[in-house]
Amino acid sequence: MSTIFSKIIKGEIPSHKIYENEYVFAFLDIQPLEKGHTLIVPKIEVDKFNDVPEPYYSAVFVAAKKIANAIEKSLDAKRIVTKVIGTDVPHFHYHLMPLITKNPSGNKPIAIEPEEMEQIATKIRQEIQKADK
Amino acid sequence: MSTIFSKIIKGEIPSHKIYENEYVFAFLDIQPLEKGHTLIVPKIEVDKFNDVPEPYYSAVFVAAKKIANAIEKSLDAKRIVTKVIGTDVPHFHYHLMPLITKNPSGNKPIAIEPEEMEQIATKIRQEIQKADK
Repeated sequence: MSTIFSKIIKGEIPSHKIYENEYVFAFLDIQPLEKGHTLIVPKIEVDKFNDVPEPYYSAVFVAAKKIANAIEKSLDAKRIVTKVIGTDVPHFHYHLMPLITKNPSGNKPIAIEPEEMEQIATKIRQEIQKADK
Repeated sequence: MSTIFSKIIKGEIPSHKIYENEYVFAFLDIQPLEKGHTLIVPKIEVDKFNDVPEPYYSAVFVAAKKIANAIEKSLDAKRIVTKVIGTDVPHFHYHLMPLITKNPSGNKPIAIEPEEMEQIATKIRQEIQKADK
């Protein structure tokens, strides 16, 4: 059975996509702890990060660098904090959260309208495209 | 000026060492949120993870996989959670924390005697050595 993240990767569940390559897919977390809160997942269903095979594993972190730079620039964030918890969905996902207005270690999602989510995703995607030129 | 982590890498400040290679150094956090709480740092002083150059950057995450497996086995942990905050020491450090007895997202360090810290480090090092054979 597919995880919710595999369904997002396949497009069966809509998402605010940030980035995609052969090995990883990144999109805005629908329960964001901060604006621009992004999840990066490998295109392989493995629960724990330390069980994810290469090249999927390292591809997540290489993408994280590219996406973190774009989030910083597009949302004027001082830095990006990251975490892996993984007790919710059994498909490794790497959280990237900008430090903007509040402590992102808080666990209460903030409400962001779908239109604003897509505006944020567009801004981040544009920064990635600029950097790739 | 050297960061505290560079002093630990050079051995100028003692640590409970877990692992070392050409690019990274890992040791037990002296303010552990859980037994086996480990920090992995690149052997280059860069504040933000997204500014760390290769091969140092990816070496941190490749080491994290190896160390996470060893922490799980030696401390009977279900899984390892990770985080990057980075607002304390301006030298990128990747936290690995086993899920054993409590929620490691709590922010209160637990007290562990130096003797027990070294016993924990020894156990983890032994598991890494076994896996490397």
